Amino acid sequence: MNTKIPKISSFPTGEENTGYAQYFTGKSWLAPLTKNSDLNVPLSNVTFEPGSRNNWHSHTGGQLLIVVGGEGLYQERGKPAIHLKSGDIVEIAPNVEHWHGATSKSWFSHLATNGNPKTNENIWLEPVTDEVYNEANLEIKK
Amino acid sequence: MNTKIPKISSFPTGEENTGYAQYFTGKSWLAPLTKNSDLNVPLSNVTFEPGSRNNWHSHTGGQLLIVVGGEGLYQERGKPAIHLKSGDIVEIAPNVEHWHGATSKSWFSHLATNGNPKTNENIWLEPVTDEVYNEANLEIKK
Repeated sequence: MNTKIPKISSFPTGEENTGYAQYFTGKSWLAPLTKNSDLNVPLSNVTFEPGSRNNWHSHTGGQLLIVVGGEGLYQERGKPAIHLKSGDIVEIAPNVEHWHGATSKSWFSHLATNGNPKTNENIWLEPVTDEVYNEANLEIKK
Repeated sequence: MNTKIPKISSFPTGEENTGYAQYFTGKSWLAPLTKNSDLNVPLSNVTFEPGSRNNWHSHTGGQLLIVVGGEGLYQERGKPAIHLKSGDIVEIAPNVEHWHGATSKSWFSHLATNGNPKTNENIWLEPVTDEVYNEANLEIKK
């Protein structure tokens, strides 16, 4: 069954993100936006369907998220979730465990680039449980 | 006289870009969006009033532009100008001479990050003449 993806930003949505599906709960789509590795800023647009989020993970080089559409969530281990909307920027320091994804009711798109891509490694951890995810969604409604 | 800046993206417009005014024809505004230098992705939003553009210049580390609002122009030395709209990405290779700015009739905002910020140097050259600028604007109407 094909999912109908709404147009929530000016950036391309790309293809279903099957390569990283093992690290996601729910579906996502990935559009690589850059080619020139000399710049050391590999940029992609990641789109999450409502309810979709990636596993807890960290990046040895850090990560930068640029929110371009819809509504999403970002949470660092041990901290409250943050509600994200278009125009928000998230700077994720190296080695900080976190997850990001759509809210339960909205599609969500962010551009993402890994810091220090020549040496960066992504460390994938356990899925975000429904309990943690639902609590994060409740927090943003307070 | 204050300029009334239209809201053309979800990102902050920041302050008038007086620090770089010597390298611009027309006014621009600059909003730094990141703080964590560990990521090596220093991101800013640059907003140009209609007719505003920066001088010919190059970056030893290259540059990435992410168009988030309005309509603009990008031109590399010796090539036709490219018309830019929200959702467009420009990868500027190291040491390539170029300029960017708004079209003559539209405000324009792009996010920008320098590649390889720890070693990057910006090489500023001569202003883009009205002749070159007007020709670029004509090209996009063809």
